[in-house]
Amino acid sequence: MRVKDEIKQDALFEATVKLVNEIGFVASSVSKIAKQAGISPATIYVYHKNKEELLISTYVRIKQLMGLAVQENFDDSLPIRDILKQVWGNIFSFVAEHLAYFQYIEQFSNSPFSELVNKEEVEAYFEPVIQIILKGIEQKIIKDVNFDILSAFIFFPIMALANPRHCKNFELSPENTEAAFNLAWDAIRR
Amino acid sequence: MRVKDEIKQDALFEATVKLVNEIGFVASSVSKIAKQAGISPATIYVYHKNKEELLISTYVRIKQLMGLAVQENFDDSLPIRDILKQVWGNIFSFVAEHLAYFQYIEQFSNSPFSELVNKEEVEAYFEPVIQIILKGIEQKIIKDVNFDILSAFIFFPIMALANPRHCKNFELSPENTEAAFNLAWDAIRR
Repeated sequence: MRVKDEIKQDALFEATVKLVNEIGFVASSVSKIAKQAGISPATIYVYHKNKEELLISTYVRIKQLMGLAVQENFDDSLPIRDILKQVWGNIFSFVAEHLAYFQYIEQFSNSPFSELVNKEEVEAYFEPVIQIILKGIEQKIIKDVNFDILSAFIFFPIMALANPRHCKNFELSPENTEAAFNLAWDAIRR
Repeated sequence: MRVKDEIKQDALFEATVKLVNEIGFVASSVSKIAKQAGISPATIYVYHKNKEELLISTYVRIKQLMGLAVQENFDDSLPIRDILKQVWGNIFSFVAEHLAYFQYIEQFSNSPFSELVNKEEVEAYFEPVIQIILKGIEQKIIKDVNFDILSAFIFFPIMALANPRHCKNFELSPENTEAAFNLAWDAIRR
């Protein structure tokens, strides 16, 4: 059974995402977020020093959930292409099922708060995937280029395709997901 | 010489981008935007029916400027790969030089206003590029897959790479731009 504290934390997390997506970072005050979550502002201050810290921890939590989702059915004994295909499908599903989280992340990444995130902590959630890509480079299966370039092609197009606000009529069918992965793989493979 | 009206319109455009990026869509009122632009709210209403219409036309104008930038040195007598490489470089420079516009676009695309944009009008600004891609498909140079998939790989990674908030340490050197284009081309070519 979950403790009361966790339920409150979950409500706070969801309320922060919802309100920020609706009215933006500036207009989202601690008192409005508290109201949305059905808890008292004082309770928020038990967990978070201030609004800034609440916004940052909400971002980090989404990244953590994403990191967990990405590693579902992760089997590093498989060929690198197969592992990345599984990862690709996982991210696709995560973004499509949690558009609100993703919208929050996009907004957050464009805000000044993003400078304050502990990037090492966030990267650690994706460590197994990063290791697979590095292994692919080492084995001369994946192109030996800047890591940012590789990830811009493996991960970023998913964000466009899985978001109906970017690609309105794109159908998330198995055929389209497979076709899109083929492009990602052709981009990064040697 | 530019007429007074155009100068006012430019000031209004820049002020809208700046304020929305700073405080978000909801908090950006017509009166605050007017103050930022150094014009009266009444003047805004001469050009725009309401705030919503102002925000939408700001988005459309950015897309128009982007469409113009994309077509710089556009020479459709060149091989398709060369044309797309030029287009790629143009978008890269545009995004890198106008991060504020781009930040506005990202926010806007995630807002409910994006549903109200005349998509045909916006697409028309990119028509020459779209035609080149279709020609590439017809000539069996480019993969015959869903257009959304192709554009997610030709255009979307640029947004990540050219934006320091996504790729903090990525250097916009000619080598990196070239390497990144090679990945884009490998993704879409047959």
